[in-house]
Amino acid sequence: MYQYEDDTLVLHNDLYQINMAESYWNDGIHERMAVFDLYFRSMPFNSGYAVFNGLKRVIEYINRFHFAKSDIEYLKSIGYQEDFLDYLKNLRFTGNIRSMQEGELCFGNEPLLRVEAPLIQAQLIETMLLNIVNFHTLITTKASRIRQVAHDDMLMEFGTRRAQEADAALWGARAAFIGGFNATSNVRAGKLFGIPVSGTHAHAMVQTYGDEYIAFKKYAERHKDCVFLVDTFHTLKSGVPTAIKVAKELGDKINFVGIRLDSGDIAYLSKEARRMLDEAGFTDAKIIASNDLDEQTITSLKSQGARVDSWGVGTKLITGYDQPALGAVYKLVAVENSEGSYVDRIKLSNNAEKVTTPGKKKVYRIINKKTNKAEGDYITLEHENPYDESPLKLFHPVHTYKMKFIKSFIAKDLHHDIFINGELVYDLPNETDAQTYLKDSLAYLWDENKRHLNPQEYPVDLSTLCWENKHKRIFEVAEHVKEMEEEHE
Amino acid sequence: MYQYEDDTLVLHNDLYQINMAESYWNDGIHERMAVFDLYFRSMPFNSGYAVFNGLKRVIEYINRFHFAKSDIEYLKSIGYQEDFLDYLKNLRFTGNIRSMQEGELCFGNEPLLRVEAPLIQAQLIETMLLNIVNFHTLITTKASRIRQVAHDDMLMEFGTRRAQEADAALWGARAAFIGGFNATSNVRAGKLFGIPVSGTHAHAMVQTYGDEYIAFKKYAERHKDCVFLVDTFHTLKSGVPTAIKVAKELGDKINFVGIRLDSGDIAYLSKEARRMLDEAGFTDAKIIASNDLDEQTITSLKSQGARVDSWGVGTKLITGYDQPALGAVYKLVAVENSEGSYVDRIKLSNNAEKVTTPGKKKVYRIINKKTNKAEGDYITLEHENPYDESPLKLFHPVHTYKMKFIKSFIAKDLHHDIFINGELVYDLPNETDAQTYLKDSLAYLWDENKRHLNPQEYPVDLSTLCWENKHKRIFEVAEHVKEMEEEHE
Repeated sequence: MYQYEDDTLVLHNDLYQINMAESYWNDGIHERMAVFDLYFRSMPFNSGYAVFNGLKRVIEYINRFHFAKSDIEYLKSIGYQEDFLDYLKNLRFTGNIRSMQEGELCFGNEPLLRVEAPLIQAQLIETMLLNIVNFHTLITTKASRIRQVAHDDMLMEFGTRRAQEADAALWGARAAFIGGFNATSNVRAGKLFGIPVSGTHAHAMVQTYGDEYIAFKKYAERHKDCVFLVDTFHTLKSGVPTAIKVAKELGDKINFVGIRLDSGDIAYLSKEARRMLDEAGFTDAKIIASNDLDEQTITSLKSQGARVDSWGVGTKLITGYDQPALGAVYKLVAVENSEGSYVDRIKLSNNAEKVTTPGKKKVYRIINKKTNKAEGDYITLEHENPYDESPLKLFHPVHTYKMKFIKSFIAKDLHHDIFINGELVYDLPNETDAQTYLKDSLAYLWDENKRHLNPQEYPVDLSTLCWENKHKRIFEVAEHVKEMEEEHE
Repeated sequence: MYQYEDDTLVLHNDLYQINMAESYWNDGIHERMAVFDLYFRSMPFNSGYAVFNGLKRVIEYINRFHFAKSDIEYLKSIGYQEDFLDYLKNLRFTGNIRSMQEGELCFGNEPLLRVEAPLIQAQLIETMLLNIVNFHTLITTKASRIRQVAHDDMLMEFGTRRAQEADAALWGARAAFIGGFNATSNVRAGKLFGIPVSGTHAHAMVQTYGDEYIAFKKYAERHKDCVFLVDTFHTLKSGVPTAIKVAKELGDKINFVGIRLDSGDIAYLSKEARRMLDEAGFTDAKIIASNDLDEQTITSLKSQGARVDSWGVGTKLITGYDQPALGAVYKLVAVENSEGSYVDRIKLSNNAEKVTTPGKKKVYRIINKKTNKAEGDYITLEHENPYDESPLKLFHPVHTYKMKFIKSFIAKDLHHDIFINGELVYDLPNETDAQTYLKDSLAYLWDENKRHLNPQEYPVDLSTLCWENKHKRIFEVAEHVKEMEEEHE
């Protein structure tokens, strides 16, 4: 695609990562191990749940992580020195990554993915990992929300032309499928990911022939499965009657799948079109609607009694229109000291929600055996075993009086080993399996967590040890700031 | 990147394009010439102007347009037949493209780009062209809006981690630069496009050392130009005083560029930090701010007297947060008939703004020689010469009573020949030239068109002939619909 044949994604990076890498290398601490958590703080779309995704792309990136000749030459051209660049030439990823699987339900302030690697490597992969996980998780979440309101209707992803450049269209189509969509219009997504593709013809074909009757017949000559787009001139006066006429004429020669509405009042037009199709005997013909749809408009159309069987969703899905960015961050939580043991690290902030949770941690989903429903997610320090505590105390990490005790539960470790010492050890489920996994996982959530408007907040709690450790570090830093303040007075 | 070595972007396409291509081919009309206009209807961000961009990527795409072996094999696997696929194997783009240049001011309902090509080719490139132009134009527009309110301050694009996948980050960085930004944090954008890159260090570096004093010193050991990030623990009590202390100690050994604020109340913190820096004698040290900035927040911070010299803009720019999609469309306006001459084509719609403007057209910017300001854009049929009419009558295409006459004017053809008969004939200006061209072009707009809130609408008018031609086609279609209606009664 670009002018360098050996171009990689390693410089798809914020410049400060390279600068920090150089400082660590210069200081000789670059190979000390560090632990970073990747997580978001607040729920996208005010959703009651989100859906993790992006691991396929992360694995591809990590497997290919290296500085190509042209990358090194560019860095040299902007002033980096040979000694440091010589080190980069042979750099590969040798660390560990643990991550949720694709299609896993996820929530604010819990680690979706954890990197434990030499400091310089962990730092250099940050930007790309965030770029991937933020987008894939955002769109999978949006797709799943639309799937919730569409129930068992067909859902098709039609957003390529409005996506934010090519990668977003391609990976967004995959994310939509994992989130519960049936198909995409993006043919390359079908080719690369093996997901179903869907589409018939556009207004341009009717315009080319200047006449719907001819256009529909010409389409049907070569394509057995026919969906006719009926709104090029006038939906009810011309489009629908012509579709019916062609379907009658051609009879068994085609499979008249149905019609597509792409403008106007979908509620009214779908009801009228349904009546016309039924009266003509085409009771099995489907009505497909598109035109700026999302979970709100689909809910509204359904409540108005719209007779739509199949929804084509574009712009609002592929861009996550009402919140086009997930704000996931990647924060240092522990780093090896000169004696070779980990010390926990925290970042304070004037913005309370930006304070990090220190320490190497695990995250469990606590499923109540009585109800078979998830009671919350439970973050522990690495060495803790949730089964050691019975009943398990779950409490809100800020409003600690919100507390419950669970007696009989399953604690499911939400992370899988993906890379160990730089080796891929994970067998990635395919897209269909990820879609199924999400569907099965949603059964563990209460409906109150799943409704698209004003959902109940799902608890993400810290173990007592994890909570105490965090507050200990907060007070330590407060002491440090006090010393700094006194020193500068 | 992907599993096929010969993978192309030709299947980065909506499935219906392939289906229509097949129907045209089957009907033997696939090589008839067709004219398509690419345009958007309403202004993004309610902006008074937009900025066209994406031509570099369009040129790369068209130059490489072909079906690779793996593309053909995939199409075969989903049911397309050999005869049609044989045709696709040798397909290349052989048509004409005329387009605005990168950095050109553009407005709703005027053709940004015009494709005149064999029907099958023009149809097959639609999806990718829209995917490119929609995103590049959106982000360049957003960047230019931010440049308007930032005046001569430094502007840096920091959005990679929040971008919608990798392409959006990369091309978004380029779009930001053309829109008026000084630099990007994305190193690969620097490598591929030769635009300046910028960045220092992150919170993680301070956390790694657990101490700002040590971290800043370690950074300065290897980097002469120093910007210290001061909000890891406490901005005013710890971060700023430590930055000053390190700058004093190191003196001439470093170039103390300044400090960066990334959280908290930027108005208050910047004023306090300015005072502290000035009192310490660092009156030249810059204050860099980041944290969810856009044209609204920068305007607000400036009105509060914030002492910020340089702005790092991420999420809100790179995603076009307040309107993450430009709705550009690609519409057939004329097609060759069996006698080899063009017939104009129109698409009606229940949504009035979706009615197309038929005919092969040109678009001119009318610059009043008296004021040296743009009076409006003027769309004509191909053969018209705006200088033939004097004075030139400009009237609103819907509210026709809004009319003005211009006596002394320059009519600037906004389109350039890019491809002629499939050959690239255009010498693309580089990114710096595009940025300069935009800056110069903005001088022709009134301030009232440029303000970021409630701007004056810029006129996009049709020539009398073009307007009459459109209404003639509307009435023709209305007649046709009436006939259809009568036939189906």
